[in-house]
Amino acid sequence: MERHLDQELEDLKKYLLKMGTLVEESISESVEALKVLDSERADQVIIDDKAIDEMENNVDEMCLDLLALRQPMAVDLRFITMAMKISTDLERIADLAVDIAQRVLELCGKPLVKPLIDIPKLTNLAQQMVKDALDAFVNKDADLAGKVILLDNQADKLRNLVQKELIEDYMEKDPSAVSRAVPLLLVARHLERICDHATNIAEDVIYLVKAEVVKHHPEKLGG
Amino acid sequence: MERHLDQELEDLKKYLLKMGTLVEESISESVEALKVLDSERADQVIIDDKAIDEMENNVDEMCLDLLALRQPMAVDLRFITMAMKISTDLERIADLAVDIAQRVLELCGKPLVKPLIDIPKLTNLAQQMVKDALDAFVNKDADLAGKVILLDNQADKLRNLVQKELIEDYMEKDPSAVSRAVPLLLVARHLERICDHATNIAEDVIYLVKAEVVKHHPEKLGG
Repeated sequence: MERHLDQELEDLKKYLLKMGTLVEESISESVEALKVLDSERADQVIIDDKAIDEMENNVDEMCLDLLALRQPMAVDLRFITMAMKISTDLERIADLAVDIAQRVLELCGKPLVKPLIDIPKLTNLAQQMVKDALDAFVNKDADLAGKVILLDNQADKLRNLVQKELIEDYMEKDPSAVSRAVPLLLVARHLERICDHATNIAEDVIYLVKAEVVKHHPEKLGG
Repeated sequence: MERHLDQELEDLKKYLLKMGTLVEESISESVEALKVLDSERADQVIIDDKAIDEMENNVDEMCLDLLALRQPMAVDLRFITMAMKISTDLERIADLAVDIAQRVLELCGKPLVKPLIDIPKLTNLAQQMVKDALDAFVNKDADLAGKVILLDNQADKLRNLVQKELIEDYMEKDPSAVSRAVPLLLVARHLERICDHATNIAEDVIYLVKAEVVKHHPEKLGG
């Protein structure tokens, strides 16, 4: 029984990592589509989202089976229920990539209001945070999770920078730029929200690892 | 044992409804603060969010205890794991009320760019959707959940209306209005995202009720 559960948990981790890889690709593809205003590429992100939605359901079913058939205890129980929450976060991150793709479709056919500098930076940060948060989860690595949480500040700063520049240097100076600037401002917010989801995952990891510490050192409970 | 589980599920439902009531209050308080640009009232929404964060943790602990001690099966198992996902949705909705409160703080001291008409409408819709989605969950009412999902279209339309008006009638006509119009545009997006969360909850409910139908009529499985 024990060996089965270990193997199934391993399968669950692999599946979550696979889902994470697809989600990271959605993020990068949506922003690549933005850089060159490629509507076909944006459409593809929207189409690919269906597969990610299905993966969320699959994670849920895997977890429900594990809960029903293996009746796991303590840290395994927490790990499995967190996997269900994390699959929702991953699915919502993919939805935000779809949001970015929709902004691309709004912008297609019009010239970009400005060259993209901080948005690609924020994209790299978002991808790194999602990847690290998920790695931290499957490896129960609280240090890595802590690093993800610290990066969230940087994401807020980059988003504010993009927003301030778009408002002060473009929208307030040239009314004809407004309708092209608003979608970019929203892209920065979508990306920052992706970072928020990564932060949520990282916070869950720290909670999970703490529970494990408590399990192994019960004297730390209620101390 | 059965009677205990029923009672504990009842307690869980009551607690979720209580959490839902506080979340609805956060939404309405954040928009009331917006209407009169009251920074103290906005601050209070931000302060009150801590209690809601804690409630999410409490729901998780209640659910983990139920899973560990009662080892529930089938629909009860699904109900409990969904309660954990829904508590996260409620917590994120409260975070969006905090986002609205932060937009209020950005706007304080400046006159509102326009009288609020569609934003209060969108607020009422968001509150109704959250309330109905949660009621649908605790009563396993698929019809009510279906109604919530249908309302999401209306939320999208109201948000687009607010955005279009702010861009075309204010920002493009008066550059000095931009910095006061952007926060309002974002408030409409925060409210629409609250409606998205309510829709997510409603979709979960339909999935849950379907599982129950399948449990009671196993002939419908794989038919």
